[in-house]
Amino acid sequence: MVRIGGTRLHVMDAVSVIGAKRDGRELTDDQISWVIDAFTRGEVADEQMSALAMAIYFQGMTRRELVRWTAAMLDSGKRMDFAALPRPTVDKHSTGGVGDKITLPLVPLVAACGAAVPQLSGRGLGHTGGTLDKMESIPGWRADVSPTRMAEMLADPRIGAVVCAAGADLTPADRRLYALRDVTGTVPSIPLIASSIMSKKIAEGTAALVLDVKVGAGAFMPDADSARELALAMVELGADAGVRTVALLTAMDTPLGRTAGNALEVAESVEVLAGGGPSDVVELTVALAREMVAAAGIRDVDPADKLADGSAMDHWRALVAAQGGDPDAPLPTARHTAVLTAADSGTLTRLDALAVGVAAWRLGAGRARQGEPVQAGAGIEMHAKPGDPVTAGQPLLTLHTDTPEAFARAEAALADAVAIDRTAAPAQASPLVLDRIE
Amino acid sequence: MVRIGGTRLHVMDAVSVIGAKRDGRELTDDQISWVIDAFTRGEVADEQMSALAMAIYFQGMTRRELVRWTAAMLDSGKRMDFAALPRPTVDKHSTGGVGDKITLPLVPLVAACGAAVPQLSGRGLGHTGGTLDKMESIPGWRADVSPTRMAEMLADPRIGAVVCAAGADLTPADRRLYALRDVTGTVPSIPLIASSIMSKKIAEGTAALVLDVKVGAGAFMPDADSARELALAMVELGADAGVRTVALLTAMDTPLGRTAGNALEVAESVEVLAGGGPSDVVELTVALAREMVAAAGIRDVDPADKLADGSAMDHWRALVAAQGGDPDAPLPTARHTAVLTAADSGTLTRLDALAVGVAAWRLGAGRARQGEPVQAGAGIEMHAKPGDPVTAGQPLLTLHTDTPEAFARAEAALADAVAIDRTAAPAQASPLVLDRIE
Repeated sequence: MVRIGGTRLHVMDAVSVIGAKRDGRELTDDQISWVIDAFTRGEVADEQMSALAMAIYFQGMTRRELVRWTAAMLDSGKRMDFAALPRPTVDKHSTGGVGDKITLPLVPLVAACGAAVPQLSGRGLGHTGGTLDKMESIPGWRADVSPTRMAEMLADPRIGAVVCAAGADLTPADRRLYALRDVTGTVPSIPLIASSIMSKKIAEGTAALVLDVKVGAGAFMPDADSARELALAMVELGADAGVRTVALLTAMDTPLGRTAGNALEVAESVEVLAGGGPSDVVELTVALAREMVAAAGIRDVDPADKLADGSAMDHWRALVAAQGGDPDAPLPTARHTAVLTAADSGTLTRLDALAVGVAAWRLGAGRARQGEPVQAGAGIEMHAKPGDPVTAGQPLLTLHTDTPEAFARAEAALADAVAIDRTAAPAQASPLVLDRIE
Repeated sequence: MVRIGGTRLHVMDAVSVIGAKRDGRELTDDQISWVIDAFTRGEVADEQMSALAMAIYFQGMTRRELVRWTAAMLDSGKRMDFAALPRPTVDKHSTGGVGDKITLPLVPLVAACGAAVPQLSGRGLGHTGGTLDKMESIPGWRADVSPTRMAEMLADPRIGAVVCAAGADLTPADRRLYALRDVTGTVPSIPLIASSIMSKKIAEGTAALVLDVKVGAGAFMPDADSARELALAMVELGADAGVRTVALLTAMDTPLGRTAGNALEVAESVEVLAGGGPSDVVELTVALAREMVAAAGIRDVDPADKLADGSAMDHWRALVAAQGGDPDAPLPTARHTAVLTAADSGTLTRLDALAVGVAAWRLGAGRARQGEPVQAGAGIEMHAKPGDPVTAGQPLLTLHTDTPEAFARAEAALADAVAIDRTAAPAQASPLVLDRIE
């Protein structure tokens, strides 16, 4: 756009940046830095940023644009620094799934292997749960930890980890942009997802990072090609920023484990730490732990041993207690339950992750809008998983809620979630880890 | 998106409408009606509507969607009704050009032919001028006319026309959406342009409509294919709403006439009404007048005769006076002028409409933002047009402004506006009317 004289017309500048992206031109470094900075300061309006986000959805970003966009998000706030810690830092991020409680056993397990794990986590929205919501079902546990206390917990050899909310001073541009994308239909853009995740993770000061990128019905990325593209973009951004980054592509067609909900998932995580628990949760926890330990540069320690010898459980108990929680207190339970039974005998061939996630959300385990409360005890227990033999009339799912009027809505969400094949033979579960990108 | 129980989550609804359009699905009638209504009431936020507008830019609209979208814009406000007038109504809309003062001689000319012309007009933005800004350079003339007075002027056989601003109660959704598109890079979308123009024109209660769709360097639509697509969309929308609609595609590579500015264009329009004036302005005025008279169902009257016999001038004087203007008062002139001369002898082969429009804007004839004042006397006189022979040193352009510091900026805009070919022979002007769509 033409500028009038010496006056910089910022409205015009935003329009020219939006117009350039809309028309498929590559944005310059100056345009990207300016638009993110001006958006953070409120000078580029929300309606302008959402139009730009939609143009990015359609036109994508080149690798150079993505690197600059991520750097500009990072530059919008403070950056944590754990370089002075006596142990190597490593962090994990999952793109979100149903029943994905892996962070809970994984963090103390990796800490038990000798790494420091600064796990800054989020809350759930829609059908995917959030780590902080799950942890908050533990009586007394609190998500707010000061930076000083974080460093103390990470340095403490009995804890070596922290699970908390990111401070508002980390990547404020991402915080504003994510809230905007959430209400403007601009979430599913690979460059915007990659830059959002990686700017936050780089700001959190970790030296190494393992990404769990979910693929399937219950995931952000429904197909493997999109998930691989997202994983590759994030691994490259990590490498560019000096963070050793590895991504696993993992299946999310059916929920992980046998529970979806907050306290229900904590209980299942404690089972895993105690040496039991569902095989898929154990498998993915150990696989991710091995990647994290390797990325942290720790050799000759196998996470499977640290699960078996109880040291992961010790770190869990220390971590919970350090944030005000009582690891021995009984977990909250929902006031009402309802059981859904198998309509037929045969082999369970489908238990849809998205449907289970939506049903758990309707039961009260999740929220529709940021800031809404969640029920600690609400959720779903799964008594069979795909491949298991089932008998007509046997319990398949137990629904938990404090609000029994939610049962009908949850059952409606589950109407097509389950398939039973009379003739199929029982089968082993499919492999969880689909690919690895470094 | 899943709705929780009986609560309608409107944020979720907006996201699902945006997501449907983003993913290339056709919006339902209910989705369109809801989103326009909720946007007008402020329930769908600006950032959501701008994301939707950008998705429409990329995905377009089907004919059914466009008809419904236009109807929803229309339903957002009141609709005028001139059916009780003793004369047939006909209106004209131009998509905006440089030096396009055609409305000024056209409206009284068509009124002189026996039609009633309710010409609701706008103000200029950027390099294109606005009819109201031009008329306001006439001392005393006012753009605000009450609906009652409008009906009186239209019924009066000595006037038969009105030129005024649309009331705020006509298509408020379009008013909000246009302001939003202007700052979010979502102006150049054919369905959004077509529905914006046609919802306003249908709300204005005219029975017939002639559209002047500009093509070329100084126009919204740089190429004939886009202009034809826009014209066809608007003609179909008019027909669907029971408004007889015809569109002419006309050239906008070089400015119309020999002036660009406010009072400068009024003076040129008065020349045309007096039987003189530049041949291109006369040609387009008469061509559009013939279409308007025919669309109004008036037979056996040739507008060329009404120009020649002075009756168009009589209607002009009555129209100006009825809105408080003095048709005999001298027009304002700028305090400073500067002359640009021909650098070479030969034939003028180019005088770029966009460059002249931008230069006139910089001289003070236009505004960068809605609500800014304009200079009545500022603008550009053109002493030669493409095809004319020129001699080195002869005046080519005279720049007018009250703010002489603007000369340098205007001259910069004109740096490449002019081409002189030493060997080309002088030529007739190219035809103005490129196509007709009914």
